[in-house]
Amino acid sequence: MFKILCTEHNARRGEFQTPHGTVQTPAFMNVATSAAIKGGVSAFDLKELKCQIMLCNTYHLHIRPGDSLIKQLGGLHKFTGWDGPILTDSGGFQVFSLAPLRKIEEEGVTFSSHVDGKRIFMGPEESMQIQSNLGSTIAMAFDECVENPASYDYTKKSSERTIRWLYRCKAEIDRLNSLEDTLNRQQLLFGINQGSIYEDLRIENMKQISKLDLPGYAIGGLAVGEPAEVMYRIIDAVIPYMPENKPRYLMGVGTPANILEAVDRGIDIFDCVMPSRNARHGHLFTSVGIINLNNKKYESDTGPIDPNCDCPTCQNHSRAYLRHLLKSGELLFLRLSVMHNLYFYNTLMERIRFHLENNTFKRFKAENIEVLSRRI
Amino acid sequence: MFKILCTEHNARRGEFQTPHGTVQTPAFMNVATSAAIKGGVSAFDLKELKCQIMLCNTYHLHIRPGDSLIKQLGGLHKFTGWDGPILTDSGGFQVFSLAPLRKIEEEGVTFSSHVDGKRIFMGPEESMQIQSNLGSTIAMAFDECVENPASYDYTKKSSERTIRWLYRCKAEIDRLNSLEDTLNRQQLLFGINQGSIYEDLRIENMKQISKLDLPGYAIGGLAVGEPAEVMYRIIDAVIPYMPENKPRYLMGVGTPANILEAVDRGIDIFDCVMPSRNARHGHLFTSVGIINLNNKKYESDTGPIDPNCDCPTCQNHSRAYLRHLLKSGELLFLRLSVMHNLYFYNTLMERIRFHLENNTFKRFKAENIEVLSRRI
Repeated sequence: MFKILCTEHNARRGEFQTPHGTVQTPAFMNVATSAAIKGGVSAFDLKELKCQIMLCNTYHLHIRPGDSLIKQLGGLHKFTGWDGPILTDSGGFQVFSLAPLRKIEEEGVTFSSHVDGKRIFMGPEESMQIQSNLGSTIAMAFDECVENPASYDYTKKSSERTIRWLYRCKAEIDRLNSLEDTLNRQQLLFGINQGSIYEDLRIENMKQISKLDLPGYAIGGLAVGEPAEVMYRIIDAVIPYMPENKPRYLMGVGTPANILEAVDRGIDIFDCVMPSRNARHGHLFTSVGIINLNNKKYESDTGPIDPNCDCPTCQNHSRAYLRHLLKSGELLFLRLSVMHNLYFYNTLMERIRFHLENNTFKRFKAENIEVLSRRI
Repeated sequence: MFKILCTEHNARRGEFQTPHGTVQTPAFMNVATSAAIKGGVSAFDLKELKCQIMLCNTYHLHIRPGDSLIKQLGGLHKFTGWDGPILTDSGGFQVFSLAPLRKIEEEGVTFSSHVDGKRIFMGPEESMQIQSNLGSTIAMAFDECVENPASYDYTKKSSERTIRWLYRCKAEIDRLNSLEDTLNRQQLLFGINQGSIYEDLRIENMKQISKLDLPGYAIGGLAVGEPAEVMYRIIDAVIPYMPENKPRYLMGVGTPANILEAVDRGIDIFDCVMPSRNARHGHLFTSVGIINLNNKKYESDTGPIDPNCDCPTCQNHSRAYLRHLLKSGELLFLRLSVMHNLYFYNTLMERIRFHLENNTFKRFKAENIEVLSRRI
């Protein structure tokens, strides 16, 4: 299912075949939290933005509109109109970061809905059932994403529980995939490595979960406040224990520099809200650095956001117009700027793949790593 | 410049040639207040929505980003990316409805900006200068749109002043169009009929302003709170005094029923924020009436908003998905619903034109006037 086409040192250029289409890796997943990209971008726009795979949030969709309803409507693909691969997270991250009054036990987590305060229980089985109802291509394991900083003892206890949860996830998804009325009976389960910033816990965890021979593995619990150097150190520690022939997904990462560093270390898949969040604040990625449209100097700038960009925004609109929309609070600004930043990320991955194919990735990285993440 | 292709009683099927393209009438102008359609719709989307002519607001653009800047950037067409006809209102309506602490004198109006409170003066000359800077296809005369209700005496005084202002507008636009550095030296001026709900004042005003032989005339100051029957009565009174060979524009109107009634009386052009405002509240126009997506019954409705609609929203998305976006506060809802409602209005005009050509407008009106405006 995952084929490595070529490598450059640890970096891999791969092809990940799924029941909903093939993902060329390294790839960036575009985040559609509540089955919609923030900023007024639709599944049909994503095609134009060179998106290969969409990510939706289990927690949000369970609470609203409800996964049973989405199943009744034919699953996330029919619901959103996106016919390519969809990855759903497990809900774990949101339960631990968004939901107040949570209570963690061996069985699972009880928490209050952030919408209406209703008490909800979610464990590995419930998470799999919800993701099965959503009919995503890839379901993520239900895990505890420990906060940063976390003590060694707590992390060890939590990480071991997350492994036990993973075994329960695997059993439950196998059961669900065997049922006749399951929407996507080929749903794939990815395991998630945890262990905070402790190499030995990370490695032990990875050794354990790799035994399950799942179709993919993620590194979770990074980019939660620790310095980038710590993140790179953990990736370096874990990568040797990740199955080589499975896609490797670094969750919630990151800046263009983070992505270049992680690809260099052997990561294949990414997701991050950064392109859309930065766009909302007027921060737009370009081939020469990040521009801030709040800056008055763009008021009369008739050039596009990035002269080297082929996105619909850059093809049609000037910096001056976009700045006016930003200052006037027009929703059109959000749409145009989110589209640009998503296109930037999706084409950054395209360039990375191109350079891996030509064995020039290291040079591309060296030439661009500072440029792409600097504020100009 | 305005050619009547055929008529059915008082209703007219016409062609209005402008320096930026021909408008098939009856036509509905799509409102882009601050040089952007509300809800995240761009000038390029408007083409797909069968929009023929865009309306921008002089008052808003004068205050932000400033008409001098827009002139420096090449005018509204370059600024927005819309290359078809653009009508700018005069700023009068907004000065009288939005700006606090206004003071009306013969010379013009002093008011406070709704953005930063700055004192601003606008008279007929200033309004023409601003609209000339914006480079719109059609400039509207600077008028006082009296509130409803207004006394006969005040209306008479105001209406006479508005006529004097129109003469000053005409002199100023002629002067501006003769200058070499004017963006659009063929800018057209439309006069505006005022006189509140008083037939004799309306008629006297229309008689006076028609003498100027302007390229078009509008009826202003209606749809400001008076009953629809009063509006129709005023249109009936004024129409016989409007030049037959010039386009007639009914400002700020209205519901599908209002439009059918006004076309029947001889109106050619309309504008209204109703399609976008209704969309924002979840009220969507269909061929069988207005549906309210807040209604729980649409939660699992897999059909499109309107099975008879070819708009991008109806071609791609279900009522269930749109309702989910509405309930989740996703901006994508605004975009998709505004696009649908604008397309509905633009294609309603297309149907009206078709029936006028086939001499079946009266029957079309009778069969649809209640259906299209009813809430189902």
